[in-house]
Amino acid sequence: MINFDLTEDQIELQLRVKQFVVDKVIPFEKDPRLTSHGPTDELRVELNDLAREAGLFAPHVPTEWGGMGLDHTTLAVVFDAAGYSPLGPIALHCAAPDEANMNLLHRVATQAQKERWLKPFAAGEIRSNFCMTEPGGAGADPSGMLTKAHYDGDDFIVSGVKWLITGAKGSSFTIIFCDVQADGDKPGGPTMLISDMDQPGIKISRELDTIDNSFTGGHAEVTFENLRIPPENVLGEVGEGFRYVQVRLAPARLTHCMRWLGAARRVHEIACDYARNRHAFGKPIGEHEGIGFMLADNEIDIQQSQLMIWWTAAALDKGEKGRHESSVTKTAVSEAVFRVADRCVQILGGSGITQDTVVEWVFREARAFRIYDGPSEVHRWAIAKRILRNG
Amino acid sequence: MINFDLTEDQIELQLRVKQFVVDKVIPFEKDPRLTSHGPTDELRVELNDLAREAGLFAPHVPTEWGGMGLDHTTLAVVFDAAGYSPLGPIALHCAAPDEANMNLLHRVATQAQKERWLKPFAAGEIRSNFCMTEPGGAGADPSGMLTKAHYDGDDFIVSGVKWLITGAKGSSFTIIFCDVQADGDKPGGPTMLISDMDQPGIKISRELDTIDNSFTGGHAEVTFENLRIPPENVLGEVGEGFRYVQVRLAPARLTHCMRWLGAARRVHEIACDYARNRHAFGKPIGEHEGIGFMLADNEIDIQQSQLMIWWTAAALDKGEKGRHESSVTKTAVSEAVFRVADRCVQILGGSGITQDTVVEWVFREARAFRIYDGPSEVHRWAIAKRILRNG
Amino acid sequence: MINFDLTEDQIELQLRVKQFVVDKVIPFEKDPRLTSHGPTDELRVELNDLAREAGLFAPHVPTEWGGMGLDHTTLAVVFDAAGYSPLGPIALHCAAPDEANMNLLHRVATQAQKERWLKPFAAGEIRSNFCMTEPGGAGADPSGMLTKAHYDGDDFIVSGVKWLITGAKGSSFTIIFCDVQADGDKPGGPTMLISDMDQPGIKISRELDTIDNSFTGGHAEVTFENLRIPPENVLGEVGEGFRYVQVRLAPARLTHCMRWLGAARRVHEIACDYARNRHAFGKPIGEHEGIGFMLADNEIDIQQSQLMIWWTAAALDKGEKGRHESSVTKTAVSEAVFRVADRCVQILGGSGITQDTVVEWVFREARAFRIYDGPSEVHRWAIAKRILRNG
Amino acid sequence: MINFDLTEDQIELQLRVKQFVVDKVIPFEKDPRLTSHGPTDELRVELNDLAREAGLFAPHVPTEWGGMGLDHTTLAVVFDAAGYSPLGPIALHCAAPDEANMNLLHRVATQAQKERWLKPFAAGEIRSNFCMTEPGGAGADPSGMLTKAHYDGDDFIVSGVKWLITGAKGSSFTIIFCDVQADGDKPGGPTMLISDMDQPGIKISRELDTIDNSFTGGHAEVTFENLRIPPENVLGEVGEGFRYVQVRLAPARLTHCMRWLGAARRVHEIACDYARNRHAFGKPIGEHEGIGFMLADNEIDIQQSQLMIWWTAAALDKGEKGRHESSVTKTAVSEAVFRVADRCVQILGGSGITQDTVVEWVFREARAFRIYDGPSEVHRWAIAKRILRNG
Repeated sequence: MINFDLTEDQIELQLRVKQFVVDKVIPFEKDPRLTSHGPTDELRVELNDLAREAGLFAPHVPTEWGGMGLDHTTLAVVFDAAGYSPLGPIALHCAAPDEANMNLLHRVATQAQKERWLKPFAAGEIRSNFCMTEPGGAGADPSGMLTKAHYDGDDFIVSGVKWLITGAKGSSFTIIFCDVQADGDKPGGPTMLISDMDQPGIKISRELDTIDNSFTGGHAEVTFENLRIPPENVLGEVGEGFRYVQVRLAPARLTHCMRWLGAARRVHEIACDYARNRHAFGKPIGEHEGIGFMLADNEIDIQQSQLMIWWTAAALDKGEKGRHESSVTKTAVSEAVFRVADRCVQILGGSGITQDTVVEWVFREARAFRIYDGPSEVHRWAIAKRILRNG
Repeated sequence: MINFDLTEDQIELQLRVKQFVVDKVIPFEKDPRLTSHGPTDELRVELNDLAREAGLFAPHVPTEWGGMGLDHTTLAVVFDAAGYSPLGPIALHCAAPDEANMNLLHRVATQAQKERWLKPFAAGEIRSNFCMTEPGGAGADPSGMLTKAHYDGDDFIVSGVKWLITGAKGSSFTIIFCDVQADGDKPGGPTMLISDMDQPGIKISRELDTIDNSFTGGHAEVTFENLRIPPENVLGEVGEGFRYVQVRLAPARLTHCMRWLGAARRVHEIACDYARNRHAFGKPIGEHEGIGFMLADNEIDIQQSQLMIWWTAAALDKGEKGRHESSVTKTAVSEAVFRVADRCVQILGGSGITQDTVVEWVFREARAFRIYDGPSEVHRWAIAKRILRNG
Repeated sequence: MINFDLTEDQIELQLRVKQFVVDKVIPFEKDPRLTSHGPTDELRVELNDLAREAGLFAPHVPTEWGGMGLDHTTLAVVFDAAGYSPLGPIALHCAAPDEANMNLLHRVATQAQKERWLKPFAAGEIRSNFCMTEPGGAGADPSGMLTKAHYDGDDFIVSGVKWLITGAKGSSFTIIFCDVQADGDKPGGPTMLISDMDQPGIKISRELDTIDNSFTGGHAEVTFENLRIPPENVLGEVGEGFRYVQVRLAPARLTHCMRWLGAARRVHEIACDYARNRHAFGKPIGEHEGIGFMLADNEIDIQQSQLMIWWTAAALDKGEKGRHESSVTKTAVSEAVFRVADRCVQILGGSGITQDTVVEWVFREARAFRIYDGPSEVHRWAIAKRILRNG
Repeated sequence: MINFDLTEDQIELQLRVKQFVVDKVIPFEKDPRLTSHGPTDELRVELNDLAREAGLFAPHVPTEWGGMGLDHTTLAVVFDAAGYSPLGPIALHCAAPDEANMNLLHRVATQAQKERWLKPFAAGEIRSNFCMTEPGGAGADPSGMLTKAHYDGDDFIVSGVKWLITGAKGSSFTIIFCDVQADGDKPGGPTMLISDMDQPGIKISRELDTIDNSFTGGHAEVTFENLRIPPENVLGEVGEGFRYVQVRLAPARLTHCMRWLGAARRVHEIACDYARNRHAFGKPIGEHEGIGFMLADNEIDIQQSQLMIWWTAAALDKGEKGRHESSVTKTAVSEAVFRVADRCVQILGGSGITQDTVVEWVFREARAFRIYDGPSEVHRWAIAKRILRNG
C-alpha cells in the first residue's frame, strides 16, 4: 500500500546522521587536507573515527562484518543525510567506490576472500578501487575492453591501462575487470579479478586533475604490466564479469543519487538563506521572482529526486534487480542535482563562484555526476531500447 | 513505511477502469458530438450510462450519495486510468469542474443543500459550474474580485461578470464566488453562493472559443445582473469564501494531475508504437536517438509525475491540507504532461499535427492545463513565498 | 563589411507593408471565412485585391511576371512585416506552398510551362500545391517514396498517395514528386511532374483536420490513380527531382522563418501590452519578474531569429545555395518562434487559451512549424552530419 | 545595407591572430605558471612579448597610445580569434579588467592622467583593477554602495571594502567607485577615483578561491582604510560615477562575449574531433544522434552568438550607446557559451571532467561568465523594464 512515511527508527537515524554531519563533519570542509585530489587518507581516518564514535559507521555493511546492515530504503535516508556534506559519506565509509565494492564482495566473494579483503575493508582499515573504465575504449560501452589476461599455469597475467580510477592512490586492493583469453579447456571471457595494489605489475601511471575533488585518493590512471594474479583471486567465476558489473551497478548508481541529493539539499538551504538575507533593489533577493522561481524549481527537483530514489530503493528491497528503475533515477536525479547546484551558484551571484560556501564545490561535483556511472546519454539510450523492445 | 505497491483491490480496479476506457470510451473519440466546445450533454449521458453499467460511476463520491467512496490514493489510480481517454473522466462523472464541486458540497454544504443539489448531481442527473475567475481581475489573484453581492432583506443580490466558466452551458446550478457587502450587523466578505442556472439574473453572455475541448459545455462568460439568491443558498458561511476555495482547490488541482497523467501515458504509448513501426533512414525511427531520447524523457516525466501525485494523495489521505504538496505537484505535473505531449507530437511528425490520433488533442489540452487551477508562475511564486517564510 | 542597416527603400517598404497589414488585413482575422481548414478562396481573393491596390502584391515574383522582384534580404523585411498577421502572406500572395512553387517554376520551368502556369499563378488567378510527402514514407526521408510513374508511350502514368498536401483543395495545378521507372532508353529516377488538378486520375481523398489553419485550402490527402501526364509537363529533367527539391527547399524554409517571425513579433507585442495593463497582486503583471523575464526572453529570441534570417538571406543573395544556413536557421527560428508563442500564451493566462486574441492561433501554427519543411530532428541530424564530415 | 562579409583586412587579421594563438599561446596552457589564481605576471609578460613580436599587441588601444586602434566590429573578429585560448586575451593585453579600463581612461581621463597611467598601461608595463563590487551590497545593484569618501582639504579619504576585484594582486593602480560625501560647496555623489596600489591605505585583505582561473592576478578582496587620494586623481567629475560605469560597461560586456565566443569555438572543435574519432557501440560517437544533436546545437548557439555580437558591435561603431543591445547580447551569449561548454564536457565523457583538454577549464570560466558584468537575472530585469516602458 502506497506510503511515504518513514518509520520512527528511520526518522531517529536521519536526525542523528544529520546532526553528526552538521556538528562533526562540516567543520572539516575547510581543512587543508581536503586537496584538489580529494581528502587525504589522514583526513578520512580522522572522519571515520568520529563516525565510529557516533555509532554511524558503515551503514550499508552487513552486521556480520561490523556494519549497520540497513535495507536500501533506510540507506536512502541515511546516505541522503550523510551527503549534506560531501565529506559525510567519507566519514561514514559509504563513499564511492568503496561502498559499492563492499556490496559486490559481500554478494559474490568466497568466504576466504571476504575474510581477507572484506573484513579489514568494512572496518575501514583499508580502501579499494574498481578498475573498469579504459582511456581508449571501455567506458560506457564495456564491449571495447582492452585489458587482457592470459593464463600462466593456473595464474592470470594481466596487462592493460585503466583510467579515471577513483581512489586508486592510497588504496590497498583493486577489483579488475578484464578479458580473460580462454586456453584449452580453461574458460575465458569478461572476468573480475582481485589484486592487492602493492604488486610489481601495478603502477599508478598518472594522477588526473579533474573538476571534482570529493573522493579520497582522487582519480588516476592505473597500468597493469604482466600483473600476476593467483586463481583464488577470481571474483565469482571466469567469464561472468558482465553479470557482476550489473550486480554492482544498479545499487551503486542509486547510492550516488542518495548522497548527492543530500548535497543538493545543502546548497538549496544555503541559497534560501542567502535569498532571505541579501537585499538588492530594495528587498530580499528571494522576493524577486527571478530568484524565488529558482528556489521553487529547486524544491520541485529535490522532491522529485527523493521520490525517485525511494521508489528504486523499494524495488531493490523487494529483491528486484532495479536496472530500469536505477537507470531512470540516475538520469533524472543527476540532472536535477546539477540544475539545483547551478541555480544556487546563480542565486549567490559573485559569491557563488567563490569557495566561500560549499555551493561552488557541489556544482563541480554535480557536473561530474552527470557523467560517471553512465552518462545521461547512455542511460537514455538504454531506457529507449527497453521501451522499444517492450512494445 | 515507504511503500509503492498498490493493493490488490487497487490493481483490480485499475485494470477494470483501463479496460472500460479502451473498450467503451475510446470508440467515442471520433463521435461528432465531440464538438470544439467539448462533448455534448447527449454524449456525456451516453458515456455515463456505460460507466454505470460497468460499476465505475462516480468513484470519488461518498457511498452515501451513490459513489464508490474511494480515498485519494485509490482515486489517483482510478482517475489516471480514466484519463487514458480525455472522455474517460466524462464517462466516470469525475471531470472538472463537477468532481471538485461534489467534493466541496460534500464537505461544506448543509444537509438540505446536499439533498437538493448534491443528490441529483452525484447521480449524474445534472451538471454544475464554478463561477470564480473574472475577465478583468480575479483569476490567479482573487483579491481583485469585482462580482459583488448586497443584501436585500435576507436575500443576496449579485451582479458581475465571470469568465472562462467551464461547463456553464448546459449546467443546472452554479457556485458563485463573490464579495458580499456587509450591511449593519449582517456580515460581509468573500462568500460562496449557490444558484440554479435557470434564474432571470443569470445569462451566458458569450461562449468562448478555446484551445481545448474536453470539458462538457466548454467555457463561457457568465453575467449576473441583479441575481437574487435566498439565504439558504449560502454555502458554508458568509465571509469564509477563501477558506472554501482552499478546501476545493488542493484536491481539485491534484485530480487534474491524475487525469492528465493518464492522457500522457496514452500519447506516450501511441508515440512508442509509432517509433517502433515507422521507418526512416533505414530503421525504425525509435532507434534514432533523436526519437529514442524523447521516449526516454517521456518515461522519466511520467514516472516522476506518478510519484508526485501519489505523494500528495497520501498527504491528503492522512488528513493534511496538502497545499504545498498540491502546488508543487500541479506545477511539476502540468509541465511534465505538456512536455510529454509536445514530444509525442514531434515524434509523430506530420501525423502529430493532424487529428488522426488523439495526440494533437492531448497536446492542446495539456497547454491549457499549464494555466488553469493556477498558472505555473503563481504556483512558483507561492512555493517561493513559503520557502522564504520557513527560514 | 558587416552592416545591419536597412536601406531607405527597405525601411519604406517595411512600413508600408506593416501599415497595410494593420489597416487592411488584421480586420479579417475574425472573418467567418477563416475556417478550421484555413481561409477560403473567396477570402483569399478579397485579400489579394487589397494587396494589389496597395501595390504590395507578389513581392517575391520577378518583375517580368508582374511581381516586385525583390532580393532575399528585402524579402526578409517584407515577409516579416506581412507575417504580422497570419493572413498577411495570404494577402500578398506569398504564403506557402505557392511562394516556393513560383520560385521553383521560375528557376526550372520551360518558357512554355511558365506561360501556361506561372503567368496566371503569379497573377493570383490560380493556386497550386506541391505533392511530395507520403503517408507511409517519404516525408523527411524522401528515399522511401512510393508514388511511381511509368511510361505509356511518351506520357507518364502516375499512381500513389500523397499526404499533408497544403492547399490541395481549390488549387488548379500540382507539382508531383514521384519515382519514374526507367524504360529502355527512357530515363528514370526521382522526377517532378506538373499536372492540372482537374484530371480524372487525381482525387482529394481526404481533408485532414490539423492543429493549424492559416493555409488556404488546408491540408489534404491526394490520391493519383493512373494519372496521365504528357511529356511537356516534366519540370526540368527526369531523374533530377532531388536537385529541384533542394532548389525549392532552402529558400522555402527561410521564407517560412520570415513570415512566422512577424507573427512572433505580433504576439510578443500583444503580451507586452497585456503585461503593461493587466494588474495582479498590486502591480502590472509585467513588473512581476516571472512575466518580465518571459518578455525579455522573447526579445532575445526575436532578435536572434531576425539576425539568423538576415544572415541566411544574405548568403542566398550572394548566389550561395545556403543549405547549411537555411537548415541551422530553420531549426533555430522555428523553435524560437514556438517558445515566444508559448510564453505569450502563458503571459495572457486564461485569455491566452481563448481565441480572443491571435496568440492562441499563432501558438498552434508555431507548433506545426517545428515539423514542416523538416522537423528539428532531421535538421539537427543533417547539421551534425555536415560537422562530422568537415573534420 | 545588410552585410555579413568581413573585409579583406579583417579576414587577414583574423587568420593572423588565430595562427598566433595556435602556434604561440596554446603551448602555454599547461605551463605551471598558470595557477588556480590565473596566470602569473611572469607568464603574462612572456605572452605579451610574443604578441608584440607578432604585431598583435593591444588591438583595442588607440594608435596614439601604441595600439592597433580597431573599431568594435573588427575587435569582434580579433577578440574572438584571441579567445580561442583563454590565454590569448592575456597575450594580446586585451583581457578584463584591463581592456575596459584602458577604454575608460581613454574616454574620460585628463591628458595628465593618460600620460601618467594610460601610457605605461597601454604599453603593458603595468596592470590595473576596477574596484566596484562590494561584498555586502553594490554588485549588480550599485545603489547600495558602502565605500565612502570624504573631503580632507582638497584630498579624498576613502574607506570601504571591495570584493571579487579581478586582477588586484600584482596590479599597479585601481579605479575606485565610491560615494563622495558632499561638503559645503564641494560636490558629492558616486565618483571614480584613481589610485596607485602601493598606498598605505590599500590592502589586499584576502585572495579569493574561485571556480575560474583565467585572469592574471585572480580575484581578491581589497580594503581601503583612510586611503588618501589627491584631487588630480578624480576620473572625470565628482558625482558622475554612474555615467562612467555605463561608458565602461556596454563595451566591456561585449568584449567578454567576443573573447568567450572564441573559447566556445575551441571546445566545440575539440568535441567535434572527439566525436569523429572516438568509437562506442560500433561507430564514431558523433554518429550517435545523442552526441550529434549536441554538436548541432553548439553550431546554432555559436552562430547566433556571433551574429548578436556583430550586431551590437555595429551599433557601437555607429556611436550608439548600445545599452539594450549589449544587455541582450551579454545574456544570450553568456548562456549560449555555457551551454556549448557544458555539452562539450558531456560529449567528452570521462575525459571532459579532466584537465586533459581545455574543455573543463572553459566550462568553469563559462559558469562564472553568466554572473560577472551583470548576472542574467539583472539583465532580464533591465530588458523587461525597457520593454514595459516602451509601450
